[in-house]
Amino acid sequence: MTVPLRIVALGGLGEIGKNMMVIESGGDIVVVDCGLMFPKADMLGVDLVLPDVTYLLENKDRVRAILITHGHEDHIGALPFVLRELNVPVYAPPLAYDLVRVKLEEHGVLNGRDLHEIQPGDIVQLGDTTAEYFRVCHSIPDACGIALRTPSGLVLHTGDFKIDHTPVDGNPVDLQRIAELGQEGVFLLMSDSTYAEVPGHTPSEQVVGAALKHVVMDAPERVIVATFASLIARVQQIVDAAVLDGRKVAFAGRSMVNNVRMALQKSYLRAPAGTIVDLGDIDGFPDDEQVIVVTGAQGEPTAVLSRISTNRHREVTIRPNDTVVLSASTIPGNETLVSRTIDNLVRLGANVITPRQAPVHVRGHGSAEELKLMLNLVTPRYFVPLHGEYRMLAAHAKLAQAVGVEAANVFVLEDGDLLEINDGGGTVVGHVPAGHIYVDGTDRWDMESMVIRDRRLLARDGFVVVVVPIDHTGHLVGKPEVVSSGFVDPSQADGMRKEASDLLANTLANGTGQNLEWEALTQTVREVLARFLHEQTGRRPMIIPVPIEV
Amino acid sequence: MTVPLRIVALGGLGEIGKNMMVIESGGDIVVVDCGLMFPKADMLGVDLVLPDVTYLLENKDRVRAILITHGHEDHIGALPFVLRELNVPVYAPPLAYDLVRVKLEEHGVLNGRDLHEIQPGDIVQLGDTTAEYFRVCHSIPDACGIALRTPSGLVLHTGDFKIDHTPVDGNPVDLQRIAELGQEGVFLLMSDSTYAEVPGHTPSEQVVGAALKHVVMDAPERVIVATFASLIARVQQIVDAAVLDGRKVAFAGRSMVNNVRMALQKSYLRAPAGTIVDLGDIDGFPDDEQVIVVTGAQGEPTAVLSRISTNRHREVTIRPNDTVVLSASTIPGNETLVSRTIDNLVRLGANVITPRQAPVHVRGHGSAEELKLMLNLVTPRYFVPLHGEYRMLAAHAKLAQAVGVEAANVFVLEDGDLLEINDGGGTVVGHVPAGHIYVDGTDRWDMESMVIRDRRLLARDGFVVVVVPIDHTGHLVGKPEVVSSGFVDPSQADGMRKEASDLLANTLANGTGQNLEWEALTQTVREVLARFLHEQTGRRPMIIPVPIEV
Repeated sequence: MTVPLRIVALGGLGEIGKNMMVIESGGDIVVVDCGLMFPKADMLGVDLVLPDVTYLLENKDRVRAILITHGHEDHIGALPFVLRELNVPVYAPPLAYDLVRVKLEEHGVLNGRDLHEIQPGDIVQLGDTTAEYFRVCHSIPDACGIALRTPSGLVLHTGDFKIDHTPVDGNPVDLQRIAELGQEGVFLLMSDSTYAEVPGHTPSEQVVGAALKHVVMDAPERVIVATFASLIARVQQIVDAAVLDGRKVAFAGRSMVNNVRMALQKSYLRAPAGTIVDLGDIDGFPDDEQVIVVTGAQGEPTAVLSRISTNRHREVTIRPNDTVVLSASTIPGNETLVSRTIDNLVRLGANVITPRQAPVHVRGHGSAEELKLMLNLVTPRYFVPLHGEYRMLAAHAKLAQAVGVEAANVFVLEDGDLLEINDGGGTVVGHVPAGHIYVDGTDRWDMESMVIRDRRLLARDGFVVVVVPIDHTGHLVGKPEVVSSGFVDPSQADGMRKEASDLLANTLANGTGQNLEWEALTQTVREVLARFLHEQTGRRPMIIPVPIEV
Repeated sequence: MTVPLRIVALGGLGEIGKNMMVIESGGDIVVVDCGLMFPKADMLGVDLVLPDVTYLLENKDRVRAILITHGHEDHIGALPFVLRELNVPVYAPPLAYDLVRVKLEEHGVLNGRDLHEIQPGDIVQLGDTTAEYFRVCHSIPDACGIALRTPSGLVLHTGDFKIDHTPVDGNPVDLQRIAELGQEGVFLLMSDSTYAEVPGHTPSEQVVGAALKHVVMDAPERVIVATFASLIARVQQIVDAAVLDGRKVAFAGRSMVNNVRMALQKSYLRAPAGTIVDLGDIDGFPDDEQVIVVTGAQGEPTAVLSRISTNRHREVTIRPNDTVVLSASTIPGNETLVSRTIDNLVRLGANVITPRQAPVHVRGHGSAEELKLMLNLVTPRYFVPLHGEYRMLAAHAKLAQAVGVEAANVFVLEDGDLLEINDGGGTVVGHVPAGHIYVDGTDRWDMESMVIRDRRLLARDGFVVVVVPIDHTGHLVGKPEVVSSGFVDPSQADGMRKEASDLLANTLANGTGQNLEWEALTQTVREVLARFLHEQTGRRPMIIPVPIEV
């Protein structure tokens, strides 16, 4: 009789980002990753989105550890928030470990944490479960998958991966160990679904290295490359291309500069002495000996590339014949920002090269054939697709069935679905809170909040506040004062306000002739005004009556 | 000595949409197209965007006509608004003519208009200029380019085009006439740049016909196809596939139903008797004999596909084994809506096929090789790339130079740039108003409006209104009343409001002890409150003080 295995995602299933997987067997809970999500366009005014860890807090005494697969924000970004409430041991492979330390320090919560650096092959005891890290490839060094030997059986979590036989850091996926674990018999495989819809193989990072070399060598003058600050392997390729072409390299953007400094110290990044120079010094070299690596490949308005493109960067100004390379794919939702940034760079005279013009970026996740290879190496009994929007998970489920996993043993879950698997099969036995925790400024709140709903209303048609002065008997005294914003043009607003005020004064005076209850008063103001304003403008602003006793 | 030619775009150059080109020679102004733009994500609460026609109104007596190239919204959509103020003759090829009539009727402005249907080959006299329409291919029947024989010389405007040798309606681009005009000597060519960045050729619509046939024949049960209501040629292909597989076809969505009705009447669309049935009747046929064509391929929340995907459509409910085809490309900016719609359809059990899975859509615009072909057929002296974001125009300019147009004779313009060309060359001699006219509800306003800026602020951090009751001497009476929305969670708002009110009461009482000028009062309230709220929450809501005399 198998010990039942329970798994639940607090993020990452059904929507991309804030990856966090909870695995329970026997008396132990192990958590894999603790990421954040960057807010989508309709999450108005939100800075960050965190997973809801209510379920973990309720079962605090059974949580043995958080295991980090790699150092990307969507896998480590929630740690500074979560560890404050749930101070459990954290295990992470070398680069992720360094990035987590930097991050916790920035948030002032490094002290008193129980952090462990772990190497591929290391085994950690976590209650009755052991965790073994194995190497995978991804767009950051030291990415790992994790094999959990639980009382229920062997559970494999791939982390984010692609199968790159020629990765930049020379560390390919540990296919042999994965095959060995497969042969031992894997009870459950959980695997990255991000590109399950894409047929074929994801190209090797090697392709990018070659493309970058051509671009750098062909560039008549300066080269400016924008990429992700965490893409240390890409930075290495850029440095290699620069060295080959006899150029110096400088970096711009806080996270880029910090990550490069750390990567150089820890030898994730290598460059011949004298190659890397300060941004302030690079203009001491001729234009055709310069490469500048910057943040902002997603067009983020505050990052370096966007500021350069609108002439708002203090140190870097576009010159005609500059070659600007976007060595990144555009994250869905950022298309408009990226387009605008490119347009502005072209306007300033730059020659802009994106992955549409040359293979200066490849995806960090495996495509369908790689996912099938993983499934066939592991031959799991049960399968749960991880990391993806619903259709990606569904596509991965189809791949699993195509390579022979029984359809009844494949579970397409969404965040919060609590799956229990035992000898007889798997069932969703419940749901745990797994909504979005929004961070805005210093505050946090949950998904059901009125705040975002209100912001959506305000963004659509603005608001109208009506101050209704009443005496202690509830009679209107003088005239209501109407204030609005985001509603009508200032040129029209005055007339509209006066008319609205007159209308309300008449209604409140005539309509009753007697004292009004607070509730009735605000109700009347809302109705009368909503009708009037809609007739006048076709719009429906938020209307807020403020009765004030004078 | 050449008569100077002046051209200016009121839309379409630098941003996609609201295409409108003004061409002046001798004493005559001819306008090509009169389109609208669908609002972008940051145009909060805006329904439509129109071109600014101030320049035309100022030169009303010289405007001879508006010439329409084809019936897409971004070429005809602004007519109901513009014709109210500028009632000039409108010429349009057959389908566009019908669509314009329907549109003007819907807006109640058809009466008193001077509309003319025009056939390819027809010549129209417009003052000293003549206009000749010639046939091109695009994703709508009856798409044309226009040759203007002006006192300055021959001017060619391609309209939107691709060079499809096997179009669905059997009417390919009139390459011979274009070559003939080229041979005659073209002074200025203006040509579609939408896909100037894309190398190679755009595939023929024929590819789509074959793909749709396979999809329909392979579908085990119902097929639901979402496409643009104006894509009559695509609807024909869907009907053909259905007929081949012995299926009936029904239509859902107001614009789809209206366009299909018109297209059937005018024989743009043909189907064997009995093929097309009412939506209400199609369930009288077995599931594997049904095809339903719907609107909403861009994930628009109010269109049919989105409503189906969230079970909000009265007549169409997804059944397991339904095949849903998105026969459209995703317009930049709509990616998130489309992804969500697909996710929801997959959740309901549908098999969703997009252009990523099969060639069920091709672009309506020519790629680089077709643009070069057009340039080489025409061999113009001067060249202005039309229709596109800045980088697309720049890419098209490079193509023109690559095929031999002199670099000095190629002009990458933006909306409002007034280009004057004469024997000696071309120069931007001025700028005319060419911003966005926003339509929201029944109102319109211009680009510089505070309204959208206010909405952006409101969307970010909400607002706080402070009612400050003062007596006629300017002294505070009682306590300020604080109201907010979109700012903090309701659970915190009460406490925050009370604290803010106390703080302001103290400040206003202590700070001065004397009567305050209105200006000084509101200034103090703003400053004190902004600091307090930022300290408490990290946010910067819009703050509106409302002093009220009691």
